[in-house]
Amino acid sequence: MNSLTLICFFYTIKKKAPVATEYPFRRKAERSAIINVTNTTKSYAYVLQQGPYLPAGYDRKLTAAITMPDNQPVLCTQISTNVCISAYKKEGVSLRYNHKFITMNRYDRRKFLRDTTMAGIGLSLLQPARLFGSVIKPQVRIGLIAVGLRGQTHLEEMLKRSDVDIIAMADPDKDMMAMAQKRIAKAGKKAAVEYTNGPHDYKNLLKRDDIDAVFIASPWEWHLPQGIDAMNAGKIVGMEVCGAQKLQDCWDVVNTYEKTKVPLMMLENVCYRRDIMAVHHMVKQGMFGEILHLQGGYQHDLRTVLFGNGKDKNNVDFGEKGFSESKWRTAHYLHNNGDNYPTHGLGPVATMIDLNRGNRITHLSSVSTKSRGLHRYIEKKGGADHPNAKVKFVQGDIVTTQIQCANGETIVLSLDTCSPRPYNLGFRVQGTNGLWQEYGSGASDTGRIYLEDVSPYDEWEGSKAYLDKYDHPLWQRYSKDAEGSGHGGMDFFVDNAFIECIKRNVAFPLDVYDLATWYAVTPLSEKSILEGGQVQAVPDFTKGAWKTRQPVFGVSNEF
Amino acid sequence: MNSLTLICFFYTIKKKAPVATEYPFRRKAERSAIINVTNTTKSYAYVLQQGPYLPAGYDRKLTAAITMPDNQPVLCTQISTNVCISAYKKEGVSLRYNHKFITMNRYDRRKFLRDTTMAGIGLSLLQPARLFGSVIKPQVRIGLIAVGLRGQTHLEEMLKRSDVDIIAMADPDKDMMAMAQKRIAKAGKKAAVEYTNGPHDYKNLLKRDDIDAVFIASPWEWHLPQGIDAMNAGKIVGMEVCGAQKLQDCWDVVNTYEKTKVPLMMLENVCYRRDIMAVHHMVKQGMFGEILHLQGGYQHDLRTVLFGNGKDKNNVDFGEKGFSESKWRTAHYLHNNGDNYPTHGLGPVATMIDLNRGNRITHLSSVSTKSRGLHRYIEKKGGADHPNAKVKFVQGDIVTTQIQCANGETIVLSLDTCSPRPYNLGFRVQGTNGLWQEYGSGASDTGRIYLEDVSPYDEWEGSKAYLDKYDHPLWQRYSKDAEGSGHGGMDFFVDNAFIECIKRNVAFPLDVYDLATWYAVTPLSEKSILEGGQVQAVPDFTKGAWKTRQPVFGVSNEF
Repeated sequence: MNSLTLICFFYTIKKKAPVATEYPFRRKAERSAIINVTNTTKSYAYVLQQGPYLPAGYDRKLTAAITMPDNQPVLCTQISTNVCISAYKKEGVSLRYNHKFITMNRYDRRKFLRDTTMAGIGLSLLQPARLFGSVIKPQVRIGLIAVGLRGQTHLEEMLKRSDVDIIAMADPDKDMMAMAQKRIAKAGKKAAVEYTNGPHDYKNLLKRDDIDAVFIASPWEWHLPQGIDAMNAGKIVGMEVCGAQKLQDCWDVVNTYEKTKVPLMMLENVCYRRDIMAVHHMVKQGMFGEILHLQGGYQHDLRTVLFGNGKDKNNVDFGEKGFSESKWRTAHYLHNNGDNYPTHGLGPVATMIDLNRGNRITHLSSVSTKSRGLHRYIEKKGGADHPNAKVKFVQGDIVTTQIQCANGETIVLSLDTCSPRPYNLGFRVQGTNGLWQEYGSGASDTGRIYLEDVSPYDEWEGSKAYLDKYDHPLWQRYSKDAEGSGHGGMDFFVDNAFIECIKRNVAFPLDVYDLATWYAVTPLSEKSILEGGQVQAVPDFTKGAWKTRQPVFGVSNEF
Repeated sequence: MNSLTLICFFYTIKKKAPVATEYPFRRKAERSAIINVTNTTKSYAYVLQQGPYLPAGYDRKLTAAITMPDNQPVLCTQISTNVCISAYKKEGVSLRYNHKFITMNRYDRRKFLRDTTMAGIGLSLLQPARLFGSVIKPQVRIGLIAVGLRGQTHLEEMLKRSDVDIIAMADPDKDMMAMAQKRIAKAGKKAAVEYTNGPHDYKNLLKRDDIDAVFIASPWEWHLPQGIDAMNAGKIVGMEVCGAQKLQDCWDVVNTYEKTKVPLMMLENVCYRRDIMAVHHMVKQGMFGEILHLQGGYQHDLRTVLFGNGKDKNNVDFGEKGFSESKWRTAHYLHNNGDNYPTHGLGPVATMIDLNRGNRITHLSSVSTKSRGLHRYIEKKGGADHPNAKVKFVQGDIVTTQIQCANGETIVLSLDTCSPRPYNLGFRVQGTNGLWQEYGSGASDTGRIYLEDVSPYDEWEGSKAYLDKYDHPLWQRYSKDAEGSGHGGMDFFVDNAFIECIKRNVAFPLDVYDLATWYAVTPLSEKSILEGGQVQAVPDFTKGAWKTRQPVFGVSNEF
């Protein structure tokens, strides 16, 4: 898996338009391409195009492109089983060619550099900071906005590290703040400065000049306002998952990023789940062929989270009388009906089909069942006469969302949090060559795989052997470090990526555009349901840059 | 399961409007109700209403109603976990009451009759012909329209029976006709009269006066025209599955039924699959609670069916050079993009939530992936230079359809026939109390169940113990008879129901309204996809009668 295979393709200069003249490599292998342009003097757009098994005349789709100065090779990663590559420069509307290609398998940059140098095929060195980068900031100074139970898991991850200093924490909940400080003390580190003076005191934390970056793990409605404030204050943002309260919030966070250039990482931990990353790895190896259809969701019986005072297991309070998430999360079930928690299901499959990086979501539509589960739970635990038995919940028990993508894939998302059921995010990844689907919570043996010409005809195989074999290089490298970290280790990876990218000043694998797109599912699904299931256009938050942005997530074993 | 439990409810006469005054039975047990009205002189509408665990002021929904002459008890079946029953008569806009109730568990009519007589609670005898009926036509004379491979499975079922005579068969394909006659001869029965003179010769078969009923198992585009011709000719119709070519065809078949009163049975065999019927049984026992969400589909790699000449396994011909279904089925993939085969997924879940019988589909929307699989298969088997490698297929590889129902359930249907994958119709049945989902092809151990307060918390259980325990009474009774019949025995049941209903002149469990509704998914999904996933209103083919029509499917162990 990790050994390097170099396949060199040298092309003569073509004069015709690229769409008509790409070079169809009819090969079954995912590959990356180093595009090296010499003998030119200007910056060009180098465009990677895809054309798997297409008959003559079939439209080919742009999947990735980059812009680089001359005489510098660029590592492009590409997802398809069959890649057709052409590099050209844009000068107004005319196109000219001047390119050489080299394609390679992944994951060993050092070996790649050594071999390409040895191969002597005219490549100059990779720009080190482009994808991986060297550490230029060895110590990261962190603030935490909201240190509830989720914020404290990030705190724990940070406390394990010698390259992070916890400077300050903001949370109006003094009990949670005390718990967080206790964790710091237990780790033998210096107490953080506290900002507990109401919900807006985080703004004073943001005024500090000794903080590089903040984690935001507050109640959902605070995420984007706080993220925007942080960016405006020059603080790099690590943002927890949820959905947007309204669509404009997604634009606001994108616009703030574009104005301030302060980066934001979307802390979607399920992207780093071990089985997910193994499947991601298999997808990028082309094992499922060209990806067609994906499923995911948040299928998690949250009734004990949405109700309760943290003491009595039959307590069905929420809001002011609640504890932790029942204090604020349940309120979202009162007035809105939509997929209020889309990113755990969407994020992992989004990276597999390079959404916002050669692909994008164009439309979605949502439907909802009736609302029964929360009322039923209140009656069951609290009795029919409990005051909360009179509460009407607008949120339907199960919300399904159909998503359409620019490159022709479909995604089905499910939100299922009000009913008795085992935890299962319901992933399915299907391509022209086979599929994976799972029913568990991340173990390698709670899924099934079928691959054409590999599996016995028409018979499922257990997923374990595959997921073990294709264990992602990142997990192979860091599984020991991840032991004991939250959510089966995935919290280590997502927080490690956040810190390592900051240290190197390189692009986050999941960024503000991903956040905006994934968060937007919530208000758009609410609108769709309100309109009886009407299809909704999903904004292109990248404003066209999706056509040329490159995948970053999972392309190395670095972070 | 089969033992009878009688629970008697006697109510005094109420004078108020029923919607405000039903009797909420807060009980967890599915039940049937015998409504017996005495001391009245006119026909009344008896209305069964449902009100599960509803807070005061919550809307209650009408789920079933029947109209009967006085002094006749009526067996009403009801699906809900918690049933609130009231019977009233309609006289203009005012409502008056006069009712007694008795509720019972299912499946043993004889024991029921004996016990109710013994109980002496004032019930007169069931009208024998209402649901089950006595045999009034001991011998059924059958014609077969189309005797391709599917028609021949119906023929085989008929040849096993002593109560059926095969009179005539129509098919323009003389090879298939010869195969069919061979089957008849092998069974030692008299050869059928042949109609092989082109595709319209079936009309001459329909002119015969010695045929009671016809099976129609022709290529899809012929189903509804032939069905309509048959009804107009007074021949009862057993219609194979598919989707409609256009929405108006669904109206035409309904209107023909309403004009002629010649009944039609929708031969959806998957409704009779053993695991499906066990789950249906569990649903009707209320074990999953109030049903919220269902999934099903047709996930079957059809590539070897859509291509081939019946000889060479690498042959990728279709159309005139094809064999059996590749002769005509593949053509549907050329020009349309929709769920072209919805009934195997929809039918089984439709009966669980009483669609067209107290519930109905209101809307659907569909999305489709790109089209890759068929072209890829042609290239793989026939080579890139095969003439069919130039063919463009409009049908997307995977089509997903979201369905909304009047009673607040959602259904997700999947069509997935162009990709390598194990056969699996992908059923999931989920209620307020738990869920079942499966990944196999009907075996009792290829699924999982979770039931609140029954299963270990947050852990799946294997489905086998449940499905064995709740084996449907129909399967318990007839499993020996079904051995060796097509599709794991389900073909026995669907054909047996068709014949037994004809013999008794009673309503088919799956009728022309079911056919119209299920078939309509095809043209409506095509329209939705053409419009970018726009939601489509689904017609009420019952013209309001869904509010009062009663469930018939699976209510007994008779057929």
